[in-house]
Amino acid sequence: MRFLTAGESHGKALTVILEGFPKGVRITDTAINSELEKRMQGPGRGGRMQIEKDKVEILSGLRNKITLGSPIAMVIKNKDAKINPQNKDSLEEKNVARPAHADLAGSLKYNEKDINNILERASARETAARVCVGSVCKQFLATFKTRVVSYIKQIGSYQTNKTPKDIDFIFKKTKKSKVKTLDKKDQQEMLKQIEQAKEKKDSLGGIIEIWAAPVPVGLGTFMQFDQRVDAKLAQYLMSIPAVKGVEIGAGFSYADKRGSQSHDAIYYSKDKGYYHKTNNSGGIEAGISNGEPIVIRIAMKPIATLAKPLDSVNLKTKRKQKASLIRSDTSAVVACSVVAETMCAIALTESFLDKFGSDSLAQIISNYKNYIKTIY
Amino acid sequence: MRFLTAGESHGKALTVILEGFPKGVRITDTAINSELEKRMQGPGRGGRMQIEKDKVEILSGLRNKITLGSPIAMVIKNKDAKINPQNKDSLEEKNVARPAHADLAGSLKYNEKDINNILERASARETAARVCVGSVCKQFLATFKTRVVSYIKQIGSYQTNKTPKDIDFIFKKTKKSKVKTLDKKDQQEMLKQIEQAKEKKDSLGGIIEIWAAPVPVGLGTFMQFDQRVDAKLAQYLMSIPAVKGVEIGAGFSYADKRGSQSHDAIYYSKDKGYYHKTNNSGGIEAGISNGEPIVIRIAMKPIATLAKPLDSVNLKTKRKQKASLIRSDTSAVVACSVVAETMCAIALTESFLDKFGSDSLAQIISNYKNYIKTIY
Amino acid sequence: MRFLTAGESHGKALTVILEGFPKGVRITDTAINSELEKRMQGPGRGGRMQIEKDKVEILSGLRNKITLGSPIAMVIKNKDAKINPQNKDSLEEKNVARPAHADLAGSLKYNEKDINNILERASARETAARVCVGSVCKQFLATFKTRVVSYIKQIGSYQTNKTPKDIDFIFKKTKKSKVKTLDKKDQQEMLKQIEQAKEKKDSLGGIIEIWAAPVPVGLGTFMQFDQRVDAKLAQYLMSIPAVKGVEIGAGFSYADKRGSQSHDAIYYSKDKGYYHKTNNSGGIEAGISNGEPIVIRIAMKPIATLAKPLDSVNLKTKRKQKASLIRSDTSAVVACSVVAETMCAIALTESFLDKFGSDSLAQIISNYKNYIKTIY
Amino acid sequence: MRFLTAGESHGKALTVILEGFPKGVRITDTAINSELEKRMQGPGRGGRMQIEKDKVEILSGLRNKITLGSPIAMVIKNKDAKINPQNKDSLEEKNVARPAHADLAGSLKYNEKDINNILERASARETAARVCVGSVCKQFLATFKTRVVSYIKQIGSYQTNKTPKDIDFIFKKTKKSKVKTLDKKDQQEMLKQIEQAKEKKDSLGGIIEIWAAPVPVGLGTFMQFDQRVDAKLAQYLMSIPAVKGVEIGAGFSYADKRGSQSHDAIYYSKDKGYYHKTNNSGGIEAGISNGEPIVIRIAMKPIATLAKPLDSVNLKTKRKQKASLIRSDTSAVVACSVVAETMCAIALTESFLDKFGSDSLAQIISNYKNYIKTIY
Repeated sequence: MRFLTAGESHGKALTVILEGFPKGVRITDTAINSELEKRMQGPGRGGRMQIEKDKVEILSGLRNKITLGSPIAMVIKNKDAKINPQNKDSLEEKNVARPAHADLAGSLKYNEKDINNILERASARETAARVCVGSVCKQFLATFKTRVVSYIKQIGSYQTNKTPKDIDFIFKKTKKSKVKTLDKKDQQEMLKQIEQAKEKKDSLGGIIEIWAAPVPVGLGTFMQFDQRVDAKLAQYLMSIPAVKGVEIGAGFSYADKRGSQSHDAIYYSKDKGYYHKTNNSGGIEAGISNGEPIVIRIAMKPIATLAKPLDSVNLKTKRKQKASLIRSDTSAVVACSVVAETMCAIALTESFLDKFGSDSLAQIISNYKNYIKTIY
Repeated sequence: MRFLTAGESHGKALTVILEGFPKGVRITDTAINSELEKRMQGPGRGGRMQIEKDKVEILSGLRNKITLGSPIAMVIKNKDAKINPQNKDSLEEKNVARPAHADLAGSLKYNEKDINNILERASARETAARVCVGSVCKQFLATFKTRVVSYIKQIGSYQTNKTPKDIDFIFKKTKKSKVKTLDKKDQQEMLKQIEQAKEKKDSLGGIIEIWAAPVPVGLGTFMQFDQRVDAKLAQYLMSIPAVKGVEIGAGFSYADKRGSQSHDAIYYSKDKGYYHKTNNSGGIEAGISNGEPIVIRIAMKPIATLAKPLDSVNLKTKRKQKASLIRSDTSAVVACSVVAETMCAIALTESFLDKFGSDSLAQIISNYKNYIKTIY
Repeated sequence: MRFLTAGESHGKALTVILEGFPKGVRITDTAINSELEKRMQGPGRGGRMQIEKDKVEILSGLRNKITLGSPIAMVIKNKDAKINPQNKDSLEEKNVARPAHADLAGSLKYNEKDINNILERASARETAARVCVGSVCKQFLATFKTRVVSYIKQIGSYQTNKTPKDIDFIFKKTKKSKVKTLDKKDQQEMLKQIEQAKEKKDSLGGIIEIWAAPVPVGLGTFMQFDQRVDAKLAQYLMSIPAVKGVEIGAGFSYADKRGSQSHDAIYYSKDKGYYHKTNNSGGIEAGISNGEPIVIRIAMKPIATLAKPLDSVNLKTKRKQKASLIRSDTSAVVACSVVAETMCAIALTESFLDKFGSDSLAQIISNYKNYIKTIY
Repeated sequence: MRFLTAGESHGKALTVILEGFPKGVRITDTAINSELEKRMQGPGRGGRMQIEKDKVEILSGLRNKITLGSPIAMVIKNKDAKINPQNKDSLEEKNVARPAHADLAGSLKYNEKDINNILERASARETAARVCVGSVCKQFLATFKTRVVSYIKQIGSYQTNKTPKDIDFIFKKTKKSKVKTLDKKDQQEMLKQIEQAKEKKDSLGGIIEIWAAPVPVGLGTFMQFDQRVDAKLAQYLMSIPAVKGVEIGAGFSYADKRGSQSHDAIYYSKDKGYYHKTNNSGGIEAGISNGEPIVIRIAMKPIATLAKPLDSVNLKTKRKQKASLIRSDTSAVVACSVVAETMCAIALTESFLDKFGSDSLAQIISNYKNYIKTIY
């Protein structure tokens, strides 16, 4: 399985082609649109998000909601398209690089002076196309009861002290919360953080925890470095704009612990098969899923565009100039959590298809059942 | 550029083939052996490391120390080879899965009862083969003055409070220290941590910080998710056995900060070109290197094999049984730092060749110079 | 560079995303549409081709005709769309496999009874999406004066006895001919072949010769089997529906010749540099372009759908039944030649970008010039 | 599955790593050595082949002849090693490019004057490493009764007029013949061709036909151009040094035929399932194996090195000079046939694993059986 996205922030449309997805899977555009809507919600979003409402159009790969095994092409039209692929458009030239964006490094790499030609593709709007793929993958994983969910662990200086007991808990709690928190108090505190930052015309980042479960033991392998499912998840999650850290299970806190305190002892029972009572490994050992829930945290940096801009330089004049203001969200942590679930669902679907084949759902189910029998 | 490693921990040899590496680069086996030696050193290593002394043999790809552009094959013979590829060997069957290893998940995935057939490849010994590739890449990067270095930030519960001012500082300080610390006090404290854990027959993990500099602006791109250099670095570093977290620049601490405090403002001067006074981005913005030092931290979990083994299960009898003891290092953080530099050097070399071509060093230098002219 | 196409023959649209294409290249949709039109022309085409007129819509990757370096998404809407991705459509179930199509093998592979779900994607209509990519690549190659052209060497039992003296000759002659022949007599004879087959409700294949020139020495390499430009060209051309043979230069006729008669001796002159007086190698030696025109022939089997259908089987009843009739072209050799140029142009562009970098046209030109200086 | 080879013609050794090969397959080095020996035999080979006797050493990936699922590293030592990777060696500098070799194009591409540095890797000796992989794949395919065999169809101007009735026929006939012909008369005539060319100090090419059977229906797919098994086979076969043409089934002769004469009608019977009475498609339709034997022909150009050398140029002086003589085989068609079987076996194994999974032979067999049940 592989996919390519295309599209600029103010281009005509975002496009994505998903290739190698199995035949016979039921996929609805309503499920995709629901994920797209989640990506646009969340507190701390500015003006554009309010009016914009992304809708996917599926161009190919399905008949009557069932996949054909052929490439799935999906398009999201932009309502405020400004770029004209074949003619001169009205986008005003921009020459001042905004810090923490692609503007400077992108302009130098591609030898460009009009920063529009960099920022339009570098924009996080591209992630809407990924969300379409993620939703398709979630619908596939659901066939095996696998869910990928997430909650906000930290916004600004407030971090929750709750820990979810299982994936169902996260699923139920976050469904009710527009900040995707585990309880009301967390929600209140995080909204306060956003309110305070907004007043100061400042922006915030945060920490998101993603869970996937149940995940069958045996996805990924240690046989070659690039076949490990932890490495793939790290790549896919770090590829999300603004994400600067990824940790699995106990992650960075492993450093503080001794082996005897942190390694997950192994148990067996007839009905559960092999299992662990703890999950510091976050469901992955030696690059293979071990059957426990996959638990990953990612760190998101504060939104780069500030209402009170930082020092910068005009790339044409090379003179000092304040960065221009383009958008004014305070926080996009909730949106980022949807994209994080997306990239996680894609990575797991790929690993799943690697293990169980990918021609048709019927064959995958049959291969899957055969395998599951062998692991008890 | 791509590479494949092969070899089991007690097999005849580790082998690696590095393909797509440019012609005309000077590569010495002494430089490779020196990196291999560093990987085996460090406090907290048990018996095997003392006697074992890895030596690379270069089988192809070079003439008189100069690369031919052809695949570079390298072999490290194992002194204590036990596996016999074509006949019955004397390795005793093992059936008790060691927690935190590949043993359980690997055995289930591959439907195996003799854990030897899993652990032999899953062993971190494989990283010696990667170190050969990493050393070749470091020798290439040195042509452009780029160095990749690292130091130990934390072992067990002790974390240094020093921050290096530049890559040269790290290089000089760690050269003198067998724990790769930034000063003597850190070294003392970390050795104490190891000593204490060893007494308790326990093991320790830690945190390593890796720097690469100078790195030209423009490696990687945001054009497609899998082209980002941050995503590649995360993948390559998370693929190291026992690594459970990767963060770039301010990483997880970004969550605490507001945008105005954390984003790196942009400046310009005639002799420096564009630059930043801070480096919270860790040298990467929007998936592209921005010209500042690349700064990454990784978290390593404690060594999985414990001298005082944890609960586990015998895969044959399915009865409870203590995990067997195979090796008894207390900490491998220093070894891990060498592998981390390796994976970082490989990722950057690949991104470098993507940008500047890869046929021959002469052409790469010429392309590089042409580009550098355009970015000032 | 890579691309993915999507779309079924009677789906809503064909879609293609081209990724890794350099920034700064001038691309017009009129040039693409002109290639699309050529694909639909040629004698021997049945009804559908007459009314259908493909038009590309570029959704992203360009501004005012100049590429942004971002993925180029292109869409061709189908005028007679019948498949409904999200609802029941009116396509009548088909159960009789047509010989020489994907119908049987595809239905078995994907465990499908309604052959629509196989043939819709397997249809050669998909090649229209490739032609869009091919046209983009041709426009890129034109920057370096490189053209990719073709002519029909054989239709049915008539084979021309002319040999083109250079690429310009082919270009000029075929522009005037709707059968893409080298002269009028060939055209007459080939039209006669088509007319005769049509009368018999039969179909024809043929042989196409493709030329690309000038091609710089040094594309592709022998360093690893999958890096050879001949292997890539063979893969790309054999991937065209109905193509069953590929030969380069003297190809199969090499078998008849001795080495002394067939190998291209090497010469040097100040203004030409190194050159050959013959071109039996077809411009490729040891997997590398050698500077001479690349000359390739492909064989196309007769159109699979016959107006007078062959024996077959109903996949539902497993009873003997005549294959159903879907389309009734007599020959698609001219269309195939456009697709062949396409796949050739894509393969060469990829090899070109591999050698000279791919960030921006300006840098590619500069790298190219530096290299060219070294080869005289 | 993927593999990389390394090694120069007069380097220390050829090395190959095969990755992604399933666990639990029985592989013997004697079977590999037997293929290596076949590669060196055949009439028309000169001096070196007589003394040289390649032996594989398996370094990893197996225990007691059973694969571990880990990468298989194999090494063939060179008896006449001349290249020294780390020191000055005694290879005499060569400056005259031999026509039809990599010498000229390779030297220009890599900006090299000593042609040794090009020809050593470009040499067809590299194919010995591929043969090791091919033998491993043949041993895997044998589990499913699949064989890959070949015979010589043409050497010089003599082409056989026999056509094999099935794969067993080829297998039996060629086993007895040192020229791999279908009968004695062919052998006599082909030996005569070689004798005559040898006398004239000239060289010969030929045509080889490769068969693979039984091959299950459903390998490869038309869903994306690079997923077709015909395209993959074309790529793999065209990557063999000296191969200039590939045709599948009726291949180029399709051009002469009408659809009604050439397409393979479909039949069904209870014990055979779906089948065809003819096999013009060569076992592949629409990029998928259709269950019939895969039949491919390749064209090999005459050996490039001639005992009576052609005109050429000294790359240092740029003056006219006769090409130097390095080796003096007359024909290597038989060796080429072994390499052709190799590349075919590798391509089919990859497609097989794509369809049925690749973790362990036990699971592949179980998935395979489940699938086979569905296709009758």
